[in-house]
Amino acid sequence: MQNFSVKEARQESAIGVAATVSGWIRTRRDSKGGFSFLEVNDGSCLGNLQVVAPAELTNYESEVRHLTAGCSVRVVGQIVASGGAGQATELRAEAITIYGGADPETYPLQKKRHTLEKLREWAHLRPRTNAIGAVMRVRNRVCRSIHDFFQEDGFLYIQTPIITASDCEGAGEMFRVTTLDADKPARTPAGEVDFAQDFFGKRTHLTVSGQLEGEVYASALGKIYTFGPTFRAENSHTSRHLAEFWMVEPEAAFYELPDNIDLAQAFLKRIVGDVLRDCQEDLALFTERIDADLMPRLEKLVADDFVRLPYTEAITRLTDSGESFEYPVTWGSDLQAEHERFLTEKQFGAPVVLYDYPASIKPFYMYVNEPDTAGRLTVRAMDVLVPGVGEIIGGSQREHRLEVLERRMAEQSLDPAEYWWYTDLRRYGSVPHSGFGLGLERMVQYVTGMANIRDVIPFPRTPLSAEF
Amino acid sequence: MQNFSVKEARQESAIGVAATVSGWIRTRRDSKGGFSFLEVNDGSCLGNLQVVAPAELTNYESEVRHLTAGCSVRVVGQIVASGGAGQATELRAEAITIYGGADPETYPLQKKRHTLEKLREWAHLRPRTNAIGAVMRVRNRVCRSIHDFFQEDGFLYIQTPIITASDCEGAGEMFRVTTLDADKPARTPAGEVDFAQDFFGKRTHLTVSGQLEGEVYASALGKIYTFGPTFRAENSHTSRHLAEFWMVEPEAAFYELPDNIDLAQAFLKRIVGDVLRDCQEDLALFTERIDADLMPRLEKLVADDFVRLPYTEAITRLTDSGESFEYPVTWGSDLQAEHERFLTEKQFGAPVVLYDYPASIKPFYMYVNEPDTAGRLTVRAMDVLVPGVGEIIGGSQREHRLEVLERRMAEQSLDPAEYWWYTDLRRYGSVPHSGFGLGLERMVQYVTGMANIRDVIPFPRTPLSAEF
Repeated sequence: MQNFSVKEARQESAIGVAATVSGWIRTRRDSKGGFSFLEVNDGSCLGNLQVVAPAELTNYESEVRHLTAGCSVRVVGQIVASGGAGQATELRAEAITIYGGADPETYPLQKKRHTLEKLREWAHLRPRTNAIGAVMRVRNRVCRSIHDFFQEDGFLYIQTPIITASDCEGAGEMFRVTTLDADKPARTPAGEVDFAQDFFGKRTHLTVSGQLEGEVYASALGKIYTFGPTFRAENSHTSRHLAEFWMVEPEAAFYELPDNIDLAQAFLKRIVGDVLRDCQEDLALFTERIDADLMPRLEKLVADDFVRLPYTEAITRLTDSGESFEYPVTWGSDLQAEHERFLTEKQFGAPVVLYDYPASIKPFYMYVNEPDTAGRLTVRAMDVLVPGVGEIIGGSQREHRLEVLERRMAEQSLDPAEYWWYTDLRRYGSVPHSGFGLGLERMVQYVTGMANIRDVIPFPRTPLSAEF
Repeated sequence: MQNFSVKEARQESAIGVAATVSGWIRTRRDSKGGFSFLEVNDGSCLGNLQVVAPAELTNYESEVRHLTAGCSVRVVGQIVASGGAGQATELRAEAITIYGGADPETYPLQKKRHTLEKLREWAHLRPRTNAIGAVMRVRNRVCRSIHDFFQEDGFLYIQTPIITASDCEGAGEMFRVTTLDADKPARTPAGEVDFAQDFFGKRTHLTVSGQLEGEVYASALGKIYTFGPTFRAENSHTSRHLAEFWMVEPEAAFYELPDNIDLAQAFLKRIVGDVLRDCQEDLALFTERIDADLMPRLEKLVADDFVRLPYTEAITRLTDSGESFEYPVTWGSDLQAEHERFLTEKQFGAPVVLYDYPASIKPFYMYVNEPDTAGRLTVRAMDVLVPGVGEIIGGSQREHRLEVLERRMAEQSLDPAEYWWYTDLRRYGSVPHSGFGLGLERMVQYVTGMANIRDVIPFPRTPLSAEF
């Protein structure tokens, strides 16, 4: 007797096997012929296994005939070929054990389909729905591809710290981490909060990016990537922002900007290609219910080379487009979502990599180019824009020349003493290097078509909401 | 011209290839024959690539002859068979570009070997040393095996929340996460700190375990695992504790305790087997410098079945052993490290899985057994003990019977209202399920022999220390 998942039991190769399958009832249908059909799901795939429960089961009248959506069962039987449409196999039950009931009067997940908004209130039950289950299987496949892609290419997985004392990047508002008493914190004789008595002996926060620490390891081990949670204490209530989200950040020594763009392109194609190959059943659900254009969009991403466009040329194209934008297009200002979407959706209809942005709108750590013929200064930043989502990857070649880095820090009024270890990387054996960041949840939104980022993470964290 | 890593260039199959290799100088040795040998490392493996730099290089006198430890270079040349001992290949340089210097007057990592304690002060440079580089390659291999093992077995990778409002497990002291002003927090009219005005509208903390949320997903998708950072705000200054560490926690529906033990055994064997196969060069370094007994210990773990021993029998064996222990051995009290080490190192000389612990010393969520013949109550907890380290895995079958769970919560004075969603899992479609936790850093200590946990994580977080 083998334990089979529903996924395994649904395959033709399982026909003839005596198996035990455990899972949750989705529906029960009683036949006039004196037996019942049970649709059983165990999360291993979207589809259910049809269980045929004959009246001869000892608990048929007492239990099986009363099974409702959400009840948990263990079925022992024979896997046989199915005559039903849309399924290769079914399980002829010889014994059914009921583990747990689900009172239809109170169990929230009845046949009626709930809105995604409503399901967020039941984050502990929503993975039992088709839609959220499918999202989480795809999310898992994306995570697996992330690791496989980098591991196969010799990148080492490095865990950079979550709790940090440096406000390094200034990438956003930060959460404070503390063990000081909230009501009566330790105070200095002068009456100020005495962070020397906090757990780490100083103010600490949750990280907004592992990049700077990642550069430490790239400057020693060559190619590394981080993949972990990052945080923004920003009061954003949009469908694209979370206070806690997962980010993958590769960093590679001896990579210059074109290598970095090559890496980003190969990376995105790999993820999407794996999802297309391995998640067909789940993608079909998203196509039917969420985003009818999903498949052509994903297939196009895998097929086409990404357009590579310097920022300066993008400005020209936007200016010459004749489009009327809400925000003006001028060299030196950041592109708005409307501009990015015009480029990737209308102008090219393909993923676009913008690079060489004005130095004045980018952080201190990006590599500074020679001034252009008009005397304008750019840095080797890159953003990958994709149709439907906009920016999905941001990265850069890093400034590895100590004197340029220190000048940029001074221009941005950063305290060199806070960055002593970061500048040390340029003091000793400095090398050209590059990296980028991809937000996992944005990527999952892209490959599922889910409109709200709260629906692609198990337990979303947003302002005023940290349930479960 | 191909870019080769040092690891690739050291393989015999690379002989005859024209290649570019980039990395950092470990040593330079000048031959009387008018050329120099450079040992170049790029972190891709422990070993260096020998570069032969002839005097004909245009920058030989001006630059190459002045290269010192830590300088970064790009070498273009031919990979040829080497006559030197211990290396199959070497690189005949045709051009060498120097990226960055490393002033021997100030660069800390000179030929002299530093202590691991000293290296912690230079956490931004220590991955450039042989020992820490080797640790991080092995750590990466362990992480890869963790993902591969679970993915190949159909477990889904789930990210449980880092910021949590529930003090669910009481597993340890927690860090508070806040955006309230430290000096003048918002206060209620009554003068108390007003957590309703904190970012999430309530008190929030950093997670100590993703288990309870993991159970949510196991109760929907069947087999899942988490792998992420966890936190303890404990003032521990030992060589085995960190305030921030990484933990992997599988959770599987329909698994009872023996299945859980099987899973833990297969999991540990897989990790160690992969490390033994893929990290031979790094393990040789640890054997030479850190732990002479490393290899037989690891090989034995892969070869032998784990001993499985009920707690009650362990107590009998300890009592009958004739050993004099510092702490008394009595049924109902937790085992001390000395007891665990006696069992795994002296009594059995093998990994030991202890299970069925007294209910009174274990958390509320563990499955309660029938009382034994002496009327004593145990729960289906399990700890995996390994020689040299002691407890490396802790887990249990979970209590899935609502009434028993609620009784246990009441006994431990837990507020049911805080656990409404956790008890809902038992209210609707409850199933037997089990899981365990493995601390990544403990595992890396085990497979490397490193004595101090601060040396197996990139940037350790401990009381009064959150540098970098």
